[in-house]
Amino acid sequence: MNRNNEDYRSPAVPALTKILLEDVKKIFKTTSGTPFLIPTTGTGAWESALTNTLSPGDRIVSFVIGQFSLLWVDQQQRLGFNVDVVESEWGAGANLEVLASKLAADTAHTIKAVCIVHNETATGVTNNLASVRKILDHYQHPALFLVDGVSSICALDFRMDEWGVDVALTGSQKALSLPTGMGIVCASPKAIEASQTAKSLRVFFDWKDYLKFYKMGTYWPYTPSIQLLYGLKAALDLIFEEGLDNVIARHNRLGTATRLAVEAWGLKNCTQKEEWFSDTVTAVVVPPYIDSAEIVRRGWKRYNLSLGLGLNKVAGKVFRIGHLGHVNDLQLLGCLAGVEMVLKDVGYPVKLGSGVAAACAYLQNNIPMIPSRI
Amino acid sequence: MNRNNEDYRSPAVPALTKILLEDVKKIFKTTSGTPFLIPTTGTGAWESALTNTLSPGDRIVSFVIGQFSLLWVDQQQRLGFNVDVVESEWGAGANLEVLASKLAADTAHTIKAVCIVHNETATGVTNNLASVRKILDHYQHPALFLVDGVSSICALDFRMDEWGVDVALTGSQKALSLPTGMGIVCASPKAIEASQTAKSLRVFFDWKDYLKFYKMGTYWPYTPSIQLLYGLKAALDLIFEEGLDNVIARHNRLGTATRLAVEAWGLKNCTQKEEWFSDTVTAVVVPPYIDSAEIVRRGWKRYNLSLGLGLNKVAGKVFRIGHLGHVNDLQLLGCLAGVEMVLKDVGYPVKLGSGVAAACAYLQNNIPMIPSRI
Amino acid sequence: MNRNNEDYRSPAVPALTKILLEDVKKIFKTTSGTPFLIPTTGTGAWESALTNTLSPGDRIVSFVIGQFSLLWVDQQQRLGFNVDVVESEWGAGANLEVLASKLAADTAHTIKAVCIVHNETATGVTNNLASVRKILDHYQHPALFLVDGVSSICALDFRMDEWGVDVALTGSQKALSLPTGMGIVCASPKAIEASQTAKSLRVFFDWKDYLKFYKMGTYWPYTPSIQLLYGLKAALDLIFEEGLDNVIARHNRLGTATRLAVEAWGLKNCTQKEEWFSDTVTAVVVPPYIDSAEIVRRGWKRYNLSLGLGLNKVAGKVFRIGHLGHVNDLQLLGCLAGVEMVLKDVGYPVKLGSGVAAACAYLQNNIPMIPSRI
Amino acid sequence: MNRNNEDYRSPAVPALTKILLEDVKKIFKTTSGTPFLIPTTGTGAWESALTNTLSPGDRIVSFVIGQFSLLWVDQQQRLGFNVDVVESEWGAGANLEVLASKLAADTAHTIKAVCIVHNETATGVTNNLASVRKILDHYQHPALFLVDGVSSICALDFRMDEWGVDVALTGSQKALSLPTGMGIVCASPKAIEASQTAKSLRVFFDWKDYLKFYKMGTYWPYTPSIQLLYGLKAALDLIFEEGLDNVIARHNRLGTATRLAVEAWGLKNCTQKEEWFSDTVTAVVVPPYIDSAEIVRRGWKRYNLSLGLGLNKVAGKVFRIGHLGHVNDLQLLGCLAGVEMVLKDVGYPVKLGSGVAAACAYLQNNIPMIPSRI
Repeated sequence: MNRNNEDYRSPAVPALTKILLEDVKKIFKTTSGTPFLIPTTGTGAWESALTNTLSPGDRIVSFVIGQFSLLWVDQQQRLGFNVDVVESEWGAGANLEVLASKLAADTAHTIKAVCIVHNETATGVTNNLASVRKILDHYQHPALFLVDGVSSICALDFRMDEWGVDVALTGSQKALSLPTGMGIVCASPKAIEASQTAKSLRVFFDWKDYLKFYKMGTYWPYTPSIQLLYGLKAALDLIFEEGLDNVIARHNRLGTATRLAVEAWGLKNCTQKEEWFSDTVTAVVVPPYIDSAEIVRRGWKRYNLSLGLGLNKVAGKVFRIGHLGHVNDLQLLGCLAGVEMVLKDVGYPVKLGSGVAAACAYLQNNIPMIPSRI
Repeated sequence: MNRNNEDYRSPAVPALTKILLEDVKKIFKTTSGTPFLIPTTGTGAWESALTNTLSPGDRIVSFVIGQFSLLWVDQQQRLGFNVDVVESEWGAGANLEVLASKLAADTAHTIKAVCIVHNETATGVTNNLASVRKILDHYQHPALFLVDGVSSICALDFRMDEWGVDVALTGSQKALSLPTGMGIVCASPKAIEASQTAKSLRVFFDWKDYLKFYKMGTYWPYTPSIQLLYGLKAALDLIFEEGLDNVIARHNRLGTATRLAVEAWGLKNCTQKEEWFSDTVTAVVVPPYIDSAEIVRRGWKRYNLSLGLGLNKVAGKVFRIGHLGHVNDLQLLGCLAGVEMVLKDVGYPVKLGSGVAAACAYLQNNIPMIPSRI
Repeated sequence: MNRNNEDYRSPAVPALTKILLEDVKKIFKTTSGTPFLIPTTGTGAWESALTNTLSPGDRIVSFVIGQFSLLWVDQQQRLGFNVDVVESEWGAGANLEVLASKLAADTAHTIKAVCIVHNETATGVTNNLASVRKILDHYQHPALFLVDGVSSICALDFRMDEWGVDVALTGSQKALSLPTGMGIVCASPKAIEASQTAKSLRVFFDWKDYLKFYKMGTYWPYTPSIQLLYGLKAALDLIFEEGLDNVIARHNRLGTATRLAVEAWGLKNCTQKEEWFSDTVTAVVVPPYIDSAEIVRRGWKRYNLSLGLGLNKVAGKVFRIGHLGHVNDLQLLGCLAGVEMVLKDVGYPVKLGSGVAAACAYLQNNIPMIPSRI
Repeated sequence: MNRNNEDYRSPAVPALTKILLEDVKKIFKTTSGTPFLIPTTGTGAWESALTNTLSPGDRIVSFVIGQFSLLWVDQQQRLGFNVDVVESEWGAGANLEVLASKLAADTAHTIKAVCIVHNETATGVTNNLASVRKILDHYQHPALFLVDGVSSICALDFRMDEWGVDVALTGSQKALSLPTGMGIVCASPKAIEASQTAKSLRVFFDWKDYLKFYKMGTYWPYTPSIQLLYGLKAALDLIFEEGLDNVIARHNRLGTATRLAVEAWGLKNCTQKEEWFSDTVTAVVVPPYIDSAEIVRRGWKRYNLSLGLGLNKVAGKVFRIGHLGHVNDLQLLGCLAGVEMVLKDVGYPVKLGSGVAAACAYLQNNIPMIPSRI
């Protein structure tokens, strides 16, 4: 990414863009989807997904299971949609039984979309998208299936075509390990069709402008970040070199190791059931006599360690360990050792080394040789 | 900018942001304005300016004098505003007489905003913002005064407070010479007030979210680009080191030199009157027997020279020489020499060296010593 | 360092050099020394120290305690000096009793220099330089005191003036954490005087050329690496910001933690006595049934972990853990965890987590808060 | 080059080195030569060439035609060789007639080497190496043929094998456009043979150490700059992509254009005859009433322009325009325009634009399309 600006109207940028649009479809596991590389953040990608497919007043179903899904629902409401909010306890996954009953009742097909966060970063909960599709299919419901994959795509198993996802989105700064600034949105043919008639007012996020320039072969309705385009190329090359499925396996390995450490510390995972365990972030519940924010502060101030705060309902109650993106086993182990020291600092009677030992015992049996070094 | 991601929720990022928000006000020449650093492009900054201050159906006056003002008007219409479009011939400035008559007639104050592009990049026309303010004041009209300063701020004389501009905006990739990805919007107290009641639906661009986090001292409603924040710091440091007024004087010098070269080549400036001459871009009219796109293509393919295409109404008729940002006199002269060769390549009987000679004759008398090197 | 080349004959480079030469004296803890920033490696810095102060045939005393001191002796011999080689078992420090007896016997002052490696990287042995000075003083011997500080200066306690060191040297790629390419040599007034008459043939390494250009104020007899000069500025700024003594304390902390881990694993430190323990590198002895090279290979191939090979006499018998430069506690702990897994991989019955636990127990009580973050 | 240090003892660095050693032979146009990538500057590369092939007291012939050849002779004398210095007026090429008569007289073959600078940077003189070889062959003289190609190789036509050059050398910071820090030396089989018996004392520069590690397949006797190795890879890739002969043609084009400009300014080239004109640097003689150093100072202080000083005998009398490395036509034209303004500043009655016009008239007919953009 360390390069000068160049004229995005020169022939070089469309040539690069064309390659990127093809490559990026692979991380969504789609062949029929249409990707958009939007100079925005995850929040902007959300807005793009919603405003291009829905009209103000449209009824949608959306799940609140933590801070990020909450923020998305807030956005949905402020953009004028009529949101059936389905809440779960924070730490649980989306309540799909409620979804089923809503769809069953909605014989008139007033529900236009089902919106779900694949991986709730605030609680470390991964929702089961295949089940959502199954329910939609069971009721032969035509609602669009919109997925926030910000902290999942390129790290967790995600299958746009197989699961019939209509809009999936991610951001450059998560599993792609790039700087913030690119919202990557992928739309199914059905979503593209919906965008022709969706009445939400939008210009910056309007897919129509992109599609017009795609047809012209110049690709960009406005100035992209040249640096992020080259960065995306480099990030995808790294991922394809490792192998997307190997990347996903690595995240599973790191997630498992982290959970074993948490268990060894005698602490509770915020995620209530194993089926929801997230392989990209682990939210750890602290005992009531400890303020989790103090753990985060102390990690940063003493150990140069970045942990995630507990947000909103779980503020003070959980801290979060991220294991997402271009990160390897030893980096995680250094982090886990740091957490142990912080825990002791704040008065939790952890046995130093216990979490690292548990993680190592698992990792030592499961880390593969680095293919390029064999 | 060449640095790792860091946790934007750590105390370091708000500390940096606080400094940036103060510094950035200087480039707008405002003390009362509130700046927003939005992870978006110029098009997004436009949308932010409009949706935060206006409600669908609001009547606004907007000028079309070239491709970029045209695109803004297109955005205004698609966002549901009732736009009084005031057109000028491409190459002329905004027709302020029409504005005057509209304001005179609008005793009921149905006009909610006047939208104007400070510098129209497509035609190299700089509008007179002081006159706009004078007219508004003359009729004591309360309309908001919204200014696109994408290709002007930090390069042309711009005075937000003195001229009573209510929203001004620019982008990171223009005079700041950064990568694309940050829309910088500055709102007057009156604009902030308008944003409390504006009914345009918005979330990603909503100033309210920013203001809420400003108050909390964490500053960011969603993930900023850490790299662009540090880049902005570096760019502003460079500008303040040179001196903002010296930067503006340098752009005037480069613009003047370019215009003298165009004159020496016997070609016409697309800009019809001297009062509208732009110091950041010069659009050059080619003779009818030449396709200006061929000039751009040839510059890129043979001389590694980036010229701007003629857009829309002036496609094929003009090409554009940019002289904006972190560019110096000799770089411009190399570019002008390149243009001369391209002109000859495509059959225009230019006297090689003539434009450079004219530019040099002026520059040699007007370039100051570099202060840090005296 | 990420910057274009610039003309080293412009006034900017001497101005920067002047600052660097002053700053660099601080890391040697000297006020009377003269530093040279030579575009070379540690091996070249060695050659610079020797050829500028000695003449072929000169008698010198030099210690072999491991691979790097061995290579220096090899250089000394090949450059034509008459070397009294004082050998120790690998893992022991320099035999200073032999030095004492040689100096005692040398009433004619035929010994022109004593050459010693402060920190032997191959065995993790730190020699006691204060003792060398004490012995020299005790016998009032005028021999020059030449010190290889490649893996010590900026990381271990080093006091050029207090210990009467005549030439000290280091390299950019060690404690300064820069790319390889700058040998930093510092000469006492006595060494400078010796350089006026030393007869070793040399041009590239000749201090006289530097001194001539120092006097002229242009500083460089030949082209320096502009990038490394700016890099050195940045590295020194980081060190001074942390505080040189804090940097040294950090290395002591990391070294101690590593040694505690080694002990917990039930392995032996190659360094035979505590007084010689190195805070920048730890050489670990493996049981005879294990090939230490396999540990290094496996670390690299499976865990992306860089360990040091056992060299020469200790090849196959030791592997080395580096804890030098811009490295922090959690990075070390990640490394230690990796070592544990590798040890298990190769059949050593390590208790996973044991070393990390021992290190953490120490670190948790000894890591200070990060001053800039309090 | 923008990358972390990595362990040069890992398998990755030898693998890269092996490729580099093969690639680098192409820029010398040799198949039988052995290249050395030495962490040093051009001055060090000189020393490497001399000390590996010669013994103190050896008689050599060397030419002084400007400051850099003078410095090399100074080095040769200080390293103890018996130098037959053949001087030319500064601005003239090496006096090959004197060489011929010396070789003719030397039937005893006491002359061990002929040392010549291919391109004298101080005067912009390129020597005719093919003629040197012809003379050596004519007298069937076995002297080694040592060539300083610092400012020629990769930019001027250079043919190691065809011209029977025994040692050729260049530096990273010249035509390769890398940072300073790598001396690239290439030795013929005859030179390698000479190195087995040469008695000059040397260690850092000793080829034997390299050859030993080449055989072992680890390649490095001491720590290389990882960054420069990757930089060399990138630089060579750029050169091979453009085509080495196209690179040489580009330098010829830029040199020709510069000379045409000098002529148009009514100034004299320091180089006395066309056959010696250098395509990498042009030394321009100023009228006696002007101090050329003032031109350089003013270029730097007012125009951010880097010109070369006149050195030693031509100090104050010439300034130098470099046109070497990764530089294109428009950059040169910007530079020439800058020179014109500086000339006027210091009182030389140049017609502004005249040099640029002359250069453009030539370039416009001779610049090819950029292959990757056709």
